[in-house]
Amino acid sequence: MIYFDNAATTLQKPPEVEQAVIEAMHSLGNSGRGAHAATLSAARKIYQTRELLARLFHVTDPQQIAFTSNSTESLNTAIMGVCSQGDHVITTACEHNSVLRPLYRLEEEGTIALTIIPADRYGGIDYEEMEKSCRPETRAVVITHASNLTGVVTDIRRVSRFAREHGLLLIVDASQTAGSYPIDVEELGIDILCFTGHKGLMGPQGTGGIYVRKGIDVRPLKVGGSGVHSFDHEHPTVMPTALEAGTLNGHGIAGLDAGVRFILDTGVEKIHEREMKLAQQFVDGIMDIPRIHIYGHGGHGENVAIVTLNLGDCDSALLADELWERYEIAVRAGAHCAPLMHEALGTEKQGAVRFSFSYYNTEKEVETAIWALHELAEE
Amino acid sequence: MIYFDNAATTLQKPPEVEQAVIEAMHSLGNSGRGAHAATLSAARKIYQTRELLARLFHVTDPQQIAFTSNSTESLNTAIMGVCSQGDHVITTACEHNSVLRPLYRLEEEGTIALTIIPADRYGGIDYEEMEKSCRPETRAVVITHASNLTGVVTDIRRVSRFAREHGLLLIVDASQTAGSYPIDVEELGIDILCFTGHKGLMGPQGTGGIYVRKGIDVRPLKVGGSGVHSFDHEHPTVMPTALEAGTLNGHGIAGLDAGVRFILDTGVEKIHEREMKLAQQFVDGIMDIPRIHIYGHGGHGENVAIVTLNLGDCDSALLADELWERYEIAVRAGAHCAPLMHEALGTEKQGAVRFSFSYYNTEKEVETAIWALHELAEE
Repeated sequence: MIYFDNAATTLQKPPEVEQAVIEAMHSLGNSGRGAHAATLSAARKIYQTRELLARLFHVTDPQQIAFTSNSTESLNTAIMGVCSQGDHVITTACEHNSVLRPLYRLEEEGTIALTIIPADRYGGIDYEEMEKSCRPETRAVVITHASNLTGVVTDIRRVSRFAREHGLLLIVDASQTAGSYPIDVEELGIDILCFTGHKGLMGPQGTGGIYVRKGIDVRPLKVGGSGVHSFDHEHPTVMPTALEAGTLNGHGIAGLDAGVRFILDTGVEKIHEREMKLAQQFVDGIMDIPRIHIYGHGGHGENVAIVTLNLGDCDSALLADELWERYEIAVRAGAHCAPLMHEALGTEKQGAVRFSFSYYNTEKEVETAIWALHELAEE
Repeated sequence: MIYFDNAATTLQKPPEVEQAVIEAMHSLGNSGRGAHAATLSAARKIYQTRELLARLFHVTDPQQIAFTSNSTESLNTAIMGVCSQGDHVITTACEHNSVLRPLYRLEEEGTIALTIIPADRYGGIDYEEMEKSCRPETRAVVITHASNLTGVVTDIRRVSRFAREHGLLLIVDASQTAGSYPIDVEELGIDILCFTGHKGLMGPQGTGGIYVRKGIDVRPLKVGGSGVHSFDHEHPTVMPTALEAGTLNGHGIAGLDAGVRFILDTGVEKIHEREMKLAQQFVDGIMDIPRIHIYGHGGHGENVAIVTLNLGDCDSALLADELWERYEIAVRAGAHCAPLMHEALGTEKQGAVRFSFSYYNTEKEVETAIWALHELAEE
């Protein structure tokens, strides 16, 4: 199998990740719930992983990072946790349903008013339009760091400047960037960063997290056992416990620890560079195929290693099936949980075929995909 | 290490569990998000695990079981998802904070009125009091299947009869029973069952689930990507997708699959019997120790394999530390996220030392613990 579905989940992980999960399954108790070796080793591993993530995202205090089960949980926590009655929120057409649906829900309940900044047919956002949409009651901008459909990277610096000028919270969905594109939350002025563990961070599924800048209160989505302050009616409000009710996924976090360690050792810039080299090789190899349409590479600045395309009016699912059946190339087709992005690209009906590359893919695999597309285009 | 902290998390799992996690890390993509071998194998594994859980809990349609990250998430989903403005909810003093805190939260927000049925000093619930507390606006009974502190098993048949008579929803917290005590949701008339994967089910951390009886609508805690119906504003309302936003913990679920398979092969009755034999051996061996106080074994019906005790007025944390430092016996001390239960037992200040046994513990380990307690009591 040639696995080019890394934007869904990275299948190839550093071997240390699996090793760390196995070790954890032999030694980890329930973190923070006791004082014997097993619970202490769980607590230590979890703290250590917070520290590594803090290093990766340039967070001063690791305690400002809470673990969740994935980006969706982080985004629901962030969006439901900071919005109040009467707030106005700005988001974009580039978002995944994990951003859109929590916002729609709040809008439909009558809690918030919502403005969605449109995207152009290259997947670019109209930043001026965003700046014009600000109102006195605007509370937050919720924006993806890179589209899961086009790979186009948002100009977070510009959005951050705008957010700061107007006193808005900047909530960033880093599902497609964490681990494969540099993120400095303090320098970029990100207030809340939502990330998943099983994509660029190369950890196991069931892991993820949320960074919350000190001083911001996020109402938790879930409350319950906290291992501390058992007698209080209210769940503790101090990070990270505030957003970590119940037993953490210690086994998964141990794997995430190894993934993040690999990224820090290798260097996120180097990983990004390698992935982009593969993406560029792919684009260069297929751009002259007649009737091929590549989305989101229209000169709108930076990209992550996602190349999404269609071949003439061929149904995207059919093309993906051919790639799989005949060449064992795993890609993703259809709609990508990003409905407004499809509308902007004009691919609501056709869907689109997404190739997403990882550090572990090879030039040879890319060559095979180029060759396969040429062959399929000729039929 | 002698590990008697199985009510916190089972450290010893069947070897197949670890094996299944490793295999999954080599082969699983993102379930339901594509049509290549990796995503299909994830989808298959997840469906298979639903089927095994359905067999274990006697659920007719596996699709009525959704995966969550733990019991806390399941309980928050259930409690927040069925209660509406003006509802009255009945719960008990035996509950864990994962039940109490979501209920307190709704009460403090003014959404629900709450009645907490007291427990006696043996950890027993006053069922008559429960029956008297019903009001016309009572919506649900939320109750633990077995106390995490005393191990006393609730008479679910009685509670179920009461709930049915009054048209109440019966929400059961099976954190301490799933996998180690028989549960037949249909026969017992349980409407919503909340369980975790990493305790009696012997799966990895970061797994858990919720069974919802067909016909009951549970408002999801989280909404987002669903892999289907991408263009709808609202998250799909059909189970299990309704309660499964975002990427599932496929790697963890693969391990849970192996854990549940082991339980089904062994027989949950046999597991319960074996664990209770160890608990009984322990109780028999320590009950004549002067100044020992064993909680919750006062003849209130059935128990799961939890034995909680104190030695005179010795601080529970100190006793647990001695057990760990001198005998490498891992137990849990202090408060156990069950504040009202501690109040009923009179252990708010002292806490309590909990020994919780698993199928993998041995008679010899229990003997060592008995001997250790005798020795410590003599000092």
